[in-house]
Amino acid sequence: MDKTLLLKLLKSVAEGRVSADDGAEKLQHMAFEDITYAHIDHHRSLRKGFPEVIYGEGKTAEQITGIMEKMMDQENIILVTRADPQKAKIVLSRFHQAVYHADARMIVMELNPVPAQGRGLILIISAGTSDIPVAQEALLTARAMGNEVDAVFDVGVSGIHRLLNHQELINQAAVLIVVAGMEGALPSVVAGMVDRPVIAVPTSVGYGVNLGGLTALFAMLNSCSSNVAVVNIDNGFGAGYMAAMINRE
Amino acid sequence: MDKTLLLKLLKSVAEGRVSADDGAEKLQHMAFEDITYAHIDHHRSLRKGFPEVIYGEGKTAEQITGIMEKMMDQENIILVTRADPQKAKIVLSRFHQAVYHADARMIVMELNPVPAQGRGLILIISAGTSDIPVAQEALLTARAMGNEVDAVFDVGVSGIHRLLNHQELINQAAVLIVVAGMEGALPSVVAGMVDRPVIAVPTSVGYGVNLGGLTALFAMLNSCSSNVAVVNIDNGFGAGYMAAMINRE
Amino acid sequence: MDKTLLLKLLKSVAEGRVSADDGAEKLQHMAFEDITYAHIDHHRSLRKGFPEVIYGEGKTAEQITGIMEKMMDQENIILVTRADPQKAKIVLSRFHQAVYHADARMIVMELNPVPAQGRGLILIISAGTSDIPVAQEALLTARAMGNEVDAVFDVGVSGIHRLLNHQELINQAAVLIVVAGMEGALPSVVAGMVDRPVIAVPTSVGYGVNLGGLTALFAMLNSCSSNVAVVNIDNGFGAGYMAAMINRE
Amino acid sequence: MDKTLLLKLLKSVAEGRVSADDGAEKLQHMAFEDITYAHIDHHRSLRKGFPEVIYGEGKTAEQITGIMEKMMDQENIILVTRADPQKAKIVLSRFHQAVYHADARMIVMELNPVPAQGRGLILIISAGTSDIPVAQEALLTARAMGNEVDAVFDVGVSGIHRLLNHQELINQAAVLIVVAGMEGALPSVVAGMVDRPVIAVPTSVGYGVNLGGLTALFAMLNSCSSNVAVVNIDNGFGAGYMAAMINRE
Amino acid sequence: MDKTLLLKLLKSVAEGRVSADDGAEKLQHMAFEDITYAHIDHHRSLRKGFPEVIYGEGKTAEQITGIMEKMMDQENIILVTRADPQKAKIVLSRFHQAVYHADARMIVMELNPVPAQGRGLILIISAGTSDIPVAQEALLTARAMGNEVDAVFDVGVSGIHRLLNHQELINQAAVLIVVAGMEGALPSVVAGMVDRPVIAVPTSVGYGVNLGGLTALFAMLNSCSSNVAVVNIDNGFGAGYMAAMINRE
Amino acid sequence: MDKTLLLKLLKSVAEGRVSADDGAEKLQHMAFEDITYAHIDHHRSLRKGFPEVIYGEGKTAEQITGIMEKMMDQENIILVTRADPQKAKIVLSRFHQAVYHADARMIVMELNPVPAQGRGLILIISAGTSDIPVAQEALLTARAMGNEVDAVFDVGVSGIHRLLNHQELINQAAVLIVVAGMEGALPSVVAGMVDRPVIAVPTSVGYGVNLGGLTALFAMLNSCSSNVAVVNIDNGFGAGYMAAMINRE
Amino acid sequence: MDKTLLLKLLKSVAEGRVSADDGAEKLQHMAFEDITYAHIDHHRSLRKGFPEVIYGEGKTAEQITGIMEKMMDQENIILVTRADPQKAKIVLSRFHQAVYHADARMIVMELNPVPAQGRGLILIISAGTSDIPVAQEALLTARAMGNEVDAVFDVGVSGIHRLLNHQELINQAAVLIVVAGMEGALPSVVAGMVDRPVIAVPTSVGYGVNLGGLTALFAMLNSCSSNVAVVNIDNGFGAGYMAAMINRE
Amino acid sequence: MDKTLLLKLLKSVAEGRVSADDGAEKLQHMAFEDITYAHIDHHRSLRKGFPEVIYGEGKTAEQITGIMEKMMDQENIILVTRADPQKAKIVLSRFHQAVYHADARMIVMELNPVPAQGRGLILIISAGTSDIPVAQEALLTARAMGNEVDAVFDVGVSGIHRLLNHQELINQAAVLIVVAGMEGALPSVVAGMVDRPVIAVPTSVGYGVNLGGLTALFAMLNSCSSNVAVVNIDNGFGAGYMAAMINRE
Repeated sequence: MDKTLLLKLLKSVAEGRVSADDGAEKLQHMAFEDITYAHIDHHRSLRKGFPEVIYGEGKTAEQITGIMEKMMDQENIILVTRADPQKAKIVLSRFHQAVYHADARMIVMELNPVPAQGRGLILIISAGTSDIPVAQEALLTARAMGNEVDAVFDVGVSGIHRLLNHQELINQAAVLIVVAGMEGALPSVVAGMVDRPVIAVPTSVGYGVNLGGLTALFAMLNSCSSNVAVVNIDNGFGAGYMAAMINRE
Repeated sequence: MDKTLLLKLLKSVAEGRVSADDGAEKLQHMAFEDITYAHIDHHRSLRKGFPEVIYGEGKTAEQITGIMEKMMDQENIILVTRADPQKAKIVLSRFHQAVYHADARMIVMELNPVPAQGRGLILIISAGTSDIPVAQEALLTARAMGNEVDAVFDVGVSGIHRLLNHQELINQAAVLIVVAGMEGALPSVVAGMVDRPVIAVPTSVGYGVNLGGLTALFAMLNSCSSNVAVVNIDNGFGAGYMAAMINRE
Repeated sequence: MDKTLLLKLLKSVAEGRVSADDGAEKLQHMAFEDITYAHIDHHRSLRKGFPEVIYGEGKTAEQITGIMEKMMDQENIILVTRADPQKAKIVLSRFHQAVYHADARMIVMELNPVPAQGRGLILIISAGTSDIPVAQEALLTARAMGNEVDAVFDVGVSGIHRLLNHQELINQAAVLIVVAGMEGALPSVVAGMVDRPVIAVPTSVGYGVNLGGLTALFAMLNSCSSNVAVVNIDNGFGAGYMAAMINRE
Repeated sequence: MDKTLLLKLLKSVAEGRVSADDGAEKLQHMAFEDITYAHIDHHRSLRKGFPEVIYGEGKTAEQITGIMEKMMDQENIILVTRADPQKAKIVLSRFHQAVYHADARMIVMELNPVPAQGRGLILIISAGTSDIPVAQEALLTARAMGNEVDAVFDVGVSGIHRLLNHQELINQAAVLIVVAGMEGALPSVVAGMVDRPVIAVPTSVGYGVNLGGLTALFAMLNSCSSNVAVVNIDNGFGAGYMAAMINRE
Repeated sequence: MDKTLLLKLLKSVAEGRVSADDGAEKLQHMAFEDITYAHIDHHRSLRKGFPEVIYGEGKTAEQITGIMEKMMDQENIILVTRADPQKAKIVLSRFHQAVYHADARMIVMELNPVPAQGRGLILIISAGTSDIPVAQEALLTARAMGNEVDAVFDVGVSGIHRLLNHQELINQAAVLIVVAGMEGALPSVVAGMVDRPVIAVPTSVGYGVNLGGLTALFAMLNSCSSNVAVVNIDNGFGAGYMAAMINRE
Repeated sequence: MDKTLLLKLLKSVAEGRVSADDGAEKLQHMAFEDITYAHIDHHRSLRKGFPEVIYGEGKTAEQITGIMEKMMDQENIILVTRADPQKAKIVLSRFHQAVYHADARMIVMELNPVPAQGRGLILIISAGTSDIPVAQEALLTARAMGNEVDAVFDVGVSGIHRLLNHQELINQAAVLIVVAGMEGALPSVVAGMVDRPVIAVPTSVGYGVNLGGLTALFAMLNSCSSNVAVVNIDNGFGAGYMAAMINRE
Repeated sequence: MDKTLLLKLLKSVAEGRVSADDGAEKLQHMAFEDITYAHIDHHRSLRKGFPEVIYGEGKTAEQITGIMEKMMDQENIILVTRADPQKAKIVLSRFHQAVYHADARMIVMELNPVPAQGRGLILIISAGTSDIPVAQEALLTARAMGNEVDAVFDVGVSGIHRLLNHQELINQAAVLIVVAGMEGALPSVVAGMVDRPVIAVPTSVGYGVNLGGLTALFAMLNSCSSNVAVVNIDNGFGAGYMAAMINRE
Repeated sequence: MDKTLLLKLLKSVAEGRVSADDGAEKLQHMAFEDITYAHIDHHRSLRKGFPEVIYGEGKTAEQITGIMEKMMDQENIILVTRADPQKAKIVLSRFHQAVYHADARMIVMELNPVPAQGRGLILIISAGTSDIPVAQEALLTARAMGNEVDAVFDVGVSGIHRLLNHQELINQAAVLIVVAGMEGALPSVVAGMVDRPVIAVPTSVGYGVNLGGLTALFAMLNSCSSNVAVVNIDNGFGAGYMAAMINRE
């Protein structure tokens, strides 16, 4: 954060030209640090309740560790998404608290315990074995944001009784995340079973007219159940983040 | 049918230059009548077991009745698909045996009783109220081809128990036709419940990323159930025809 | 609802073969009424906390009033969406409590006061004049489901200060619905200003590469803000319903 | 399979609270085994008449062999599709009965002879040399399911007499699978020659506006022959499975 | 044509500053007349061997007759394509030599006999009844350009023997135009039967994944026969024009 | 070619049951050889005037040489398209007469001189440096089929005078092939300069909304010049083949 | 504009709590008036140098005149785009200074003379007769913004010499707007002739693979000339506005 | 450049048949050099004010250096775009004045100082870290063409205050280039803040329905701000070039 900017603001408050409330609000919005290749938004956790997440794709391991170093003084937890094993290895060699989740391709570095924030259970349901990585990304994100999270994997609609078997657990959830590729039908069925918000996550799993996940995405947006909203293809992180927002007390 | 062609062929058979079997096969393929705007394939019911169907869209009422007149001497039953009410009115005023099914936009003219041909029950299941016209087109087609047909309408996946309630009837079917728009999820769920072939029919019902039925179509082609094959959007006729082919003894 | 089914179930409970709890759960799922062209799900408001909504497009005024008559004994409020003025006129002539909202193309029939259910304010923000109908559909839906709702219209991103002017109201919302056509940028900007869930609704407003709303939809799914989930193009009803689900205590 | 669930069910039957018939049906649906990364559906061959097939893409060789080990006690035949040579090598080193078909990328492990189940001949016809792998996948699947299968390869429509030469064999088939890439015209021509159901399989063979097989797919869905239904691009397995369903006595 | 421009050029030739040859070539390119809403290219028939054709869509009847009046002093034949009946009626009331072909939506005004120009027969083959309007547009264009033209209609690939019946006529053609909608398979089959150039014309006939003719277009571009080139959807005029160019001595 | 088939036919002719003419025609169509992975159409050069071309993509070097060996006894010239350098090296090591053209990725094996067949000059014009490989494929194909061919490369429309400089050569051509990627504008401009048929070849050269050549393809199909027909993206071979067909005496 | 907001701001300035400069800037951004269905941005002409333009599509004549009444006290010129004749008639009946340009579907109401603002000539070039409406919209917009504008219509690339004839005028332009449908090739050719910025406007003129103007749009974005930037399909207004921005001294 | 052409022209001028002015203009257009794989347009910098730029993709290092050698006698500055590190290494080893910018993948060889040409500041704004390479390409291009350029990176719309912080710098720009991937919203917001032309550059940054940059592109073309024009996806060079054209005095 630019110090001169900060000083100028605080001076205004001190001299009564800006009220304390206004000063706080301004601070909440303007604070970030420029390290050439990124603006780090230090006050983001103040404003949004959660620090900025590092999107690993297209960043070098050096850029990732550089950003992590700047963040670790001020945050309780740091997440890196879409980190491949090579980059993760370099990052972990530098930070002993960092843990790599290979299936979700995420690095989680918990520096201080994250306090519980959610109102109820976030339940993650996925259709096939190949959808698990995306489901795991959602699970780790929601947990990192202080939520109780549970999961049921591999309960696709071609064997509907596998899903119905979990009715009890499904009824307990406050928010549901449903992950599916192929024809993307699972969110419609699950949403029809509950009176809770369902975040649907299409995955790029499939071939031919799966069209890289577009078919599952479009199917979910056309859901005949109304308690469904959708995030981008393979966006497990976004689903976990959105569910945590909904679940916040 | 061109008489000279016919005579030439018969002469060859008479003189032993063509065997009776070969002559029959040739006849089966070559017989049609040219009435300027259409080649009518008279021997088609001989070759395919069912007369050519008149696709009403883009034909005038006069063209339709013209073709019907040529066919009625030789066929037991005549179907006209995609016939709007105006055309149907004109056609019905000319043929007292013709019946118009407004919801399916079909004209059925049964001149002689169609003998039962099927091995078992063809069951038609549709997802929403708006899918019924396409489902009816399938139903009338399969029935016209000599099959026992039953139907369950409005059992979409957002209320899965409505579908499960019909499990018994579903188990009795030899072939199933499943009609759905929106996210097109119903065929996957139904196919997971049976060990019979399922013909899936996407409809153009929906809006936004329904894309005129493409989403339902692609979802059905990506079905996680393997006993599913698909026909074109809104092609109730094709589904009924294909189901009848499968059900033939 | 099929009486024999109901009787059979109750008998089982009476005779101790089914527990009261199980009986209740079964009832919650199976209850619906078949009036040929629709399965009416009477117990839906029991199961989902809100009655089934009548999607007016593709239904005749007679079908709509038929369904309404069956529902009105059992529900406090009935909604009909996508009702054009002609159909609305017929419906209103039959039910004096029904009100038609022309801009949102919705009929609202409140038979008994809907109790307040929400935790906080649902705020609806729309980008341009032409997006208002969709925004109104969301507003009426969320209000019908017992929520406090407020709205800010015509604050597109090409004049960012119009939006920033409403920061205070925006900060008060528990859930936000952001409606935009054209480039669909508004949800990203709004979501960046709050730590609350944002439901984004793309509209088909625009021309050329707007592609009937696909561009706005895709832009919203690619939002660089993570507290955004998306519903189908022009689906104001779905957004209002989802927001009400999230806002439920 | 969860034992407690099973015991609970059997107890109910024993005590007369559940009839034997109902118990059998319930068992047929609920039986599966959870091995972390997959729900194995042991009773599937009971319910569907054929064991679940292992889709090899995106699974490790270890996951594949893990699933195979769990299945081999209970099944006569196990199929793995989309298995690349590396994975196949590992799998074959573990199971001496397993055979790898490199062109179809399938592993077939026949533990006990599969009894003949089909009513008639399944004939597979493919258009070009490059379509053979998909055709082989269909052939091996249909054969593994107990059918008599024959094939004619490389008879594309640009030399229509090559196809007509096989008229006699074509006439003998009970079900036909037609595999084609490029313009996808072959199913229309073949279906016009027979009065039997034709399953069309588009392949991704081609370049430019082939669009990865979409052109062949769309062409087949638009077939001017009505006895055609279609499966996903390159889905030889699905075609073989569907044909076996149709051919079942 | 701008007279001053012409005078300036001729003066240059007269004074020897431009050679006669160069002058002729320049004239051939530069000559046109500006009547506000159109540049009429008078010398086009000199340069291209055929006058500019009037594309009727989007032009008023007044604009069409205006252009025709300017052209009729200098041309033997004038064609107007995509002329609807209302416009045609107005045009015909003004020019007694003009003839309207309703099926092809073309106006042909032959002022002087067009001399025969072609090397051989142009044969037009179309797949279905609905493709005839496009085929007729091609036929009238090629004939207007001085070619001998013949046609075979309604010989789609679902009854391949109807096509094979015309082998003799097909063998006589110097250039072939093949018109088809739906799956667009006919050009591949026809091109495989001859060693002559085939111009393929996709039509917008069909529904669902016909995609307004895109499927037929893409299928034709992917033809497995190499003696095929393609024009735009429904572009019968272009096909006739191109065939005439090829057939020119 | 199957000998028994041949003998049977000849016997029929010998015994007068088939006329000599009919026998010849039948032979022309039916002759091919089945070597498991391909039907080789030996009499194709008889029927089409040019041997079948080997499409190298997706065939192994062994398959290619296998087919070449079968063909070389009966043909004057053999072409292999889309042959990468590795395969070419193997093929050339086996046939000393074979020549590899790296830019066009073609193998040409001329066993006997190909007689001149064309009526006039085939001129190939390409827009950019990157379009040259496709242009070369067209050039080699047309030359192999006995035509005089010339070429002008790198004359894109952004410097229109480079093209106009070649007007004289352009005027001499009997048939033109125009190759372009990016916006695909060159065929329209060239076709406007001549009264000869133009075969347009879109290439996949470009990025972004080039869409792998679709943009150039669509632009060419929308050409405002009428003497243009189009082949598939990057299909230099097809363009050369079609041009040779047109140029045939 | 909300008076209380304004008063509050001015008071702050009066009392020295806000500087004059800051006050001015704030006013420039915040000033707008809320008339229920629209926020009118009164100070926009102060901030952007040109008043907000009324997009007529989707607004009623009453909404249009309502907005015009609010604007006319404060602006020199008011533009309404996409106004159909019916709405225009109503608007003109209310404002005698308003002029309707039917071809461009624009209403121009000049209340005071617009001062000349441009550095040089803006030249508008269009390809075909059907592109003129879009070209006129660009012309009227640029002229309304105080620029000298000239135009050349109907100079498509299929007759390149028509365009070259205007070289002199083209050389004089400071900014060029090039309007084209079909293959969209004209901007590339024009941009290659000048060293000035070219704004390309694709139109929806064409059929088949024109795809409603997408083909022209994509072709222009792929232009091999670098001095080209593109606006949305049929967006003549945007092109005129952008050109005026570029031409501003 | 062809000497005979040049001599012929000069002779005409010498003998008074061509005026000096005309001669100059002709020279300006016709001069280029043919080195087999490329026409080098030597007089381009005369005609367009800037030499032709070498597009590195698809050219070998040898072709690049070959072209550079031909150009370096006549130009002050040479640019190579889309040059990967391998090619750059070879090129730099040959020309000591060449500099490689790895992030922008550009080689800049400044042989003589480029004189300042612009009227004002060109400001480049980019949304995310991953958009920087494209932004750098724009920056280097505009600078190489003699402009003062400044840049602000990583100011995406999800934190709108980061952007507003730079208002002062933004107000100083004469032309703005805005680079963004994902939802492509930044150009709309920036353009709403200024009364200057904005060139928008979509990037392929993102995943899922980003569609390789199409979403950002379409969003930008649908901008609700009118002072925006767009270039192809990832076309930083084009944006820099267009901005320089606009900024030219």
